[in-house]
Amino acid sequence: MVAVADGGVTMVAAEPDVRMPCFADVLVAQARLRAHLAPTPLHHAERFGCWLKLESLQRTGSYKVRGALNALLAARERGDRRTVVAASAGNHAQGLAWAAHRLGVQAITVMPKCAPATKIAGVAHWGATVRLHGDSYDETRTFAADLATQNGWRLLPAFDDADVIAGQGTVGLELAPFAPDVVLVPIGGGGLAAGIVLALKSMREGAPANRRVRVVGAQVEGVDAMARALRGDVASREPAITLADGVRVKEAGVLTRRVLADLLDDLVIVREAELRETLVRLALEEHVVAEGAGALALAAGRRVAGRRKCAIVSGGNLDASVLAALLADVRPRPPRRPRRRHREGDDEPALAPASTRLHRTLHPIPAQRTPFEELPA
Amino acid sequence: MVAVADGGVTMVAAEPDVRMPCFADVLVAQARLRAHLAPTPLHHAERFGCWLKLESLQRTGSYKVRGALNALLAARERGDRRTVVAASAGNHAQGLAWAAHRLGVQAITVMPKCAPATKIAGVAHWGATVRLHGDSYDETRTFAADLATQNGWRLLPAFDDADVIAGQGTVGLELAPFAPDVVLVPIGGGGLAAGIVLALKSMREGAPANRRVRVVGAQVEGVDAMARALRGDVASREPAITLADGVRVKEAGVLTRRVLADLLDDLVIVREAELRETLVRLALEEHVVAEGAGALALAAGRRVAGRRKCAIVSGGNLDASVLAALLADVRPRPPRRPRRRHREGDDEPALAPASTRLHRTLHPIPAQRTPFEELPA
Repeated sequence: MVAVADGGVTMVAAEPDVRMPCFADVLVAQARLRAHLAPTPLHHAERFGCWLKLESLQRTGSYKVRGALNALLAARERGDRRTVVAASAGNHAQGLAWAAHRLGVQAITVMPKCAPATKIAGVAHWGATVRLHGDSYDETRTFAADLATQNGWRLLPAFDDADVIAGQGTVGLELAPFAPDVVLVPIGGGGLAAGIVLALKSMREGAPANRRVRVVGAQVEGVDAMARALRGDVASREPAITLADGVRVKEAGVLTRRVLADLLDDLVIVREAELRETLVRLALEEHVVAEGAGALALAAGRRVAGRRKCAIVSGGNLDASVLAALLADVRPRPPRRPRRRHREGDDEPALAPASTRLHRTLHPIPAQRTPFEELPA
Repeated sequence: MVAVADGGVTMVAAEPDVRMPCFADVLVAQARLRAHLAPTPLHHAERFGCWLKLESLQRTGSYKVRGALNALLAARERGDRRTVVAASAGNHAQGLAWAAHRLGVQAITVMPKCAPATKIAGVAHWGATVRLHGDSYDETRTFAADLATQNGWRLLPAFDDADVIAGQGTVGLELAPFAPDVVLVPIGGGGLAAGIVLALKSMREGAPANRRVRVVGAQVEGVDAMARALRGDVASREPAITLADGVRVKEAGVLTRRVLADLLDDLVIVREAELRETLVRLALEEHVVAEGAGALALAAGRRVAGRRKCAIVSGGNLDASVLAALLADVRPRPPRRPRRRHREGDDEPALAPASTRLHRTLHPIPAQRTPFEELPA
């Protein structure tokens, strides 16, 4: 119930009276980030029938750098130059480390012991201090909060923070000119999804008249804190083990839940096998390395109809051993054959005799199958 | 010595009197392709200090579709709707299959038996006929030429053709506004490099005043037909076995060699181990899946100084098993640590006592090393 004033920003101590982010915050974030981060590419994944917003090509390999940098820049504007501490499954820590390096701020990150080595190395690369503690994001969060209190550092939440949400929302602003009809977003704590719905669906003045776009969240079976929270079940539950370590949280955010309860259109639950297959197909067919959470929105995409569908590939930080094992184990079904176009050459003579021989050594053309059919056990 | 008239275009029978492509051809190709292919993204590979032109995100996963589509569109303008046959290590076949599907032209492709399964599947996916023959590009080429003669089909060369070179040159036109000072290009037969030097370094009227850009070719040790040809040694020699199957040709093109002899600035030979390490680092650090030839230009990049260096990631079609094996085998040296920025937080108090404990469990920060140092055997 108590709101604590902290360097000019109202921080959340209990549920009510939190500073809710709004569309204007996302616009301000975009103005702040412009000098540091270029927009990421939008790639047409032809065989998936879906566009991909490639945050895997973002600095530090995930969208998280947007929120972290926005929060540090906002703090600098307020004259707050304290050391920043963050708990993170990995990508928030990397984003913070990069932003802190760029702005010359001291950063300490706490990551769960099971964090991928590539994410840990990424943080160390940018000169931030790394501490490994706990087995899930929630344990590391408690520990980071204690460190902050003991040392007078600033605790930067991974998602439940107005500046962080506004920073992630800049992904949505970059999508707006493309005018998608469906945007698919992976949800862990909900920071990215909250930012994107604010950017694309907010009715505030100055917002794009874009209410028609549907924003659909994606979660993994058994790692669905937000889906439960939106149904009113806010009990903390141990999430299932998943390839998508980046979205593995016990509890959805408070701010994010409020925003999403208002503006999110739908939420799709994806099976682990679908996630694995999508990740492998992304690498082999689209030449995009996505981490588990990064493949999640695209995996959800097959359940959602749309003409200009866009899935956020939220990040690409994956351990070499994990990717190698997936490439060896998962044999994706061949994709749907393309629809025949009118053959302008239909009046051409049929293949000459020599071509009869030719057909005997043809590479067998895969039968037409829908992708994502049940994987063999 | 004999030039054979073929549907309005002069074809090469022996060396002289060939139709040389020029800057205007590249401009025309760009106008033709605009309706079909979007420009590919330019990605800043921060840890490499190099920009990447991601043709791995091109339709069919490589730049080859540009040349093939330009050649088919040019043929359509001339009223030539014959079945097209092509020999290809894989990507040219995929590009042709995609273009033929799009324009409703019949396409037959001949690929060497060792072509990656992913490339073969890519061709079949677009409905083209695939024939596996021979062990190298050169053997498949002879076979494809025989097929064309027997059946009255049009033979579409993979690189030694003015329309194909002009199509590939559109990569260079897309780079021009970025004003790179160095462009690194992988060279097999030389089609991509020839197109790019025409686009960026041609002095013809209407060309960008861009003579200052240096275009540097990259070849693999033992797979250096163009390097030898440019030194005057045009003898056909069996190329070494390499990860970069896409550039594995015995003989450089005739047209391409003429263009490159005039306009290419330099040529770097890359060791196989450097190529392997670069490919793995591209996947893990930049989240880009490149095939062997696609990692070649970036591998050459460390030998070339430049402020706005750009390497062409020419393609991303790599077999799952090859990528899995590389990820398991190759352990890249950690990248250079970033340079310290001025720390605005230097006047902050030193870390409080609690943080002393913290330092004991730090993740070890990798020592500063130059990437690409000799790999362990």
